[in-house]
Formats: sequence, C-alpha cells, structure tokens
Amino acid sequence: VNQAFLDRVRIVLVNTSHPGNIGGTARAMKNMGLSQLFLVDPRKYPHDEATRRASNADDVLEGAVVVDSLSQALAGCDLVIGTSARERRIPWPLKDPRATAAEAISSRYQGNIAILFGREHSGLTNDELQMCHLHMHIPTNPDYSSLNLAAAVQVVAYEFRMLALDAPIEVGEESGWDMPLADAADVERMHEHMAATLASINFIDPDNPKQALTRLRRMFARIRLDDMEVSILRGILNRIDKTVAKIKAD
Amino acid sequence: VNQAFLDRVRIVLVNTSHPGNIGGTARAMKNMGLSQLFLVDPRKYPHDEATRRASNADDVLEGAVVVDSLSQALAGCDLVIGTSARERRIPWPLKDPRATAAEAISSRYQGNIAILFGREHSGLTNDELQMCHLHMHIPTNPDYSSLNLAAAVQVVAYEFRMLALDAPIEVGEESGWDMPLADAADVERMHEHMAATLASINFIDPDNPKQALTRLRRMFARIRLDDMEVSILRGILNRIDKTVAKIKAD
Repeated sequence: VNQAFLDRVRIVLVNTSHPGNIGGTARAMKNMGLSQLFLVDPRKYPHDEATRRASNADDVLEGAVVVDSLSQALAGCDLVIGTSARERRIPWPLKDPRATAAEAISSRYQGNIAILFGREHSGLTNDELQMCHLHMHIPTNPDYSSLNLAAAVQVVAYEFRMLALDAPIEVGEESGWDMPLADAADVERMHEHMAATLASINFIDPDNPKQALTRLRRMFARIRLDDMEVSILRGILNRIDKTVAKIKAD
Repeated sequence: VNQAFLDRVRIVLVNTSHPGNIGGTARAMKNMGLSQLFLVDPRKYPHDEATRRASNADDVLEGAVVVDSLSQALAGCDLVIGTSARERRIPWPLKDPRATAAEAISSRYQGNIAILFGREHSGLTNDELQMCHLHMHIPTNPDYSSLNLAAAVQVVAYEFRMLALDAPIEVGEESGWDMPLADAADVERMHEHMAATLASINFIDPDNPKQALTRLRRMFARIRLDDMEVSILRGILNRIDKTVAKIKAD
C-alpha cells in the first residue's frame, strides 16, 4: 500500500448537519486507511452521535481539525476536488472517482489533496465549487442519486485505496516541474485580489458580476498555477492598483 | 448503462441482525441501479428502522424476497459470490470487487448473479462460503476492517455500476465544453496585446523583459483557452489601457 499517498488525502466536510455522518465518515476513512479529517463549521460537533457512529475509528475523529472557513481547510493543499451531484451551468473539469484518484496520485501533486463533501441536502455552493480544480461525480442512478454522505465518502475512499494498492501510477504529464505548485489558500487570496482590482478598473459588469469571475476561476483551475505564476499575477495586479491610485491622487 | 446486467445482480443478506442495515442496503442498491434483494432469515423484518433507513428506496425494500434458507435465495443463479473478511483455512478463489465485477459480466454467466453478505459480526459460515464459486474481499485497512454491512454493499454495488457504465465520466476541454477552443492566432494577438499593456504599467522588468512574459505564455499554454476566455482577457487588457490613457491625458 502506498500509505504516503493515502496520508496526503484530506477529507473536508463542509457545514455538515448530522453528527452521525461525521462519525460514519471517520469510520469509512479508517476502513480505507485515510486519516486527515477537516470539519468546516459543523452544525453539531463534538456530539455523542458522531462518537457512536465512528465505532472504533475514534482516533480519526479525535484528530479531526475543526475550522471556521473553507479556505482554512485548504491550507497546504495543491489539489482541491469538489464532489458535485448537479450539472453546472458553466461546465467544469469533471471526472468519476476512479479517474479523479488517478489524477490525484500524479507526481505533480506533492502537497495535500483535499476532497470536499458538501451539506447533506444542498451539497457545495457555487462559490465553494469554484475553489476546486476538479469536480468529481459519483455515477449514481440518475433516478435516485441521493447517496448518504458517509456512503459517498466510503466509495471515494475505496477508490483512493484501490489505487494506492497498485504500484504507483506515473501519469508523468508534468513531472519534473521547475516550481512548486501553488498552495490553494494563496490562489484563493489571488482571486480575491483580482476581483477587487477588476472592479477598480470597471472591468466587472455590475449587472452580472459573477460570470466573468467564474470563468476566470475556471480558467486558472485548469492551469494549476505554480508559485512563480501566482507571484507574477499578484505583481500585475499590484501594478494595476498603483496605476489606479495615481489617477485618484490626481 | 448496461441495465440488463445490473438487473441480474442479486444482493443476498444472510441472517442480518439490524433492520437498519437492510434499509441502508436497499438505499445503496437503488443508488447504483440494483434492484434484486433477497433476505435469508432476517432477525427483525419488516421493521420501521429498515423503512426509515431505506429513505426513498422503499420500492427495493418492498420488492425484497424473504426466504428461510440460503439455497432458496440461490435459485436461478449461475454465479454465486461470497463476501469474506477473513482468510480461509482452505484457500478459495478470491478477488477484489473490481475483478469480481469483471468476472461476473463475462458472457459465460447468463443467469442471475448472487452476492452474499453475511452476519454483521460473524460474516458467512464456512458452509455458506462453500456454496460460493468465488470469494470477494474488499481490500480494507488490515488494522481496521470493520466495514458496516450497508457500506460494504455500497462499495460492491458501485463497482458493478462502474463496470455497467458505457464510458467513464470525463468532461474536459476536449469534450462537453461550453465554448469553442480559441484559434491559435487569436491567442497570439492576445499575448502581443498583453506584452504591450504590461509594459505600459511598468510591470515588465527592463533588465529582464522576457522572463515574466515567457512564464505567462507557458502558463496559458498549459490549458487550451476557449473563445470566451480570450475575450475576457482582452477585455481586461482594454480596461487597463483605458486607465493608463486617462493618466496620460491628465
């Protein structure tokens, strides 16, 4: 088993309502050899029901990191995967769990790999999905796709373990890159900066502010920015900001 | 989806203790498009807890066939698969769920395919396992292999569905994209425009003009920009140009 790979996989539960699902997730993870659990603003946690459903996976539950915001959960991650049940209006790179695991084990990702699972009834918001490089869809029966949260984690964790059991797959597309891939939290800050700067030069259409930003996010998600690129883009934004400031000063 | 194959898959729960697991199994099955459920001598069934856990998979639950003995559940089956957590004293043909599904879809099996899941704590007896052609083992973490019954059904049903799907889910720039890919000449003009604009805001280092531009070219080359993205990027450059022109006019 490529345990080093499984150790880099971080399950992130966003805004979970039912503590039983948190416990069920811990159990599903431990069964498949995963250990990193992050809880973003859980409704009820800690909770007896979480502990009970975790069964003997209480070590995973006790190691769970509770954070307030999604971006905190993505620190140290260079691949962010969102689980999505719905068709998006703007298509995003989408894979099934097997192809997702194959992408994740690629040598270009050296940091943590975050897999986001959304709310029991409403999933991830559009804003949350836009923080992901890749969307993953579990190919359920279209007439009945209501996978329980812990069951979805079980299926995904199983696929990652199946892949870790084989000899490591070398996707190799971009191995030997000269710069480390950017941390997801740094990229998120760059996007916030970009939104502010684009508003300051009146690029963003006030009637439809999100459309262009969503497309820019999707574009950069496909690129998988490296550290140097983020720093170049921040440099460009800073120069635009200074130019705008000069106008205001005059 | 090869639904005819999925329709021939029969999930057989042997002597299940907890009715909640029967309901969870029905839900896991329906999620993956399976419908044949057989219950061999269940401890408590029918039961409110089974109905509750089945959620909206009540049609699978209502269609469940309750029998007294395992051999009754195997009528009409020409492949019988036993799930086994334990190493057997006498080795038996053993496969993981993926290889099991691949075997099951083989054209030599035309009848129903039974997959047996044993008791929550003790699994299948040796006598029951000896009624199977094949033993299936879900490759769990050896330090913690206590898969919940419904979770085990979920993983197996998922593998069977993955095999029944005609093609893997994959949306990328090559297929299922919402915009045509940009013409190379348009991308080239965008790069020239970008170089000019970045010079006008003094972003480009006069001592080393090419380094940043080369990195920006490499960055955009890693994806295939689509028409809309090129037009957004040109729009941003135009806004920067206008901002700079305003300064010069003052």
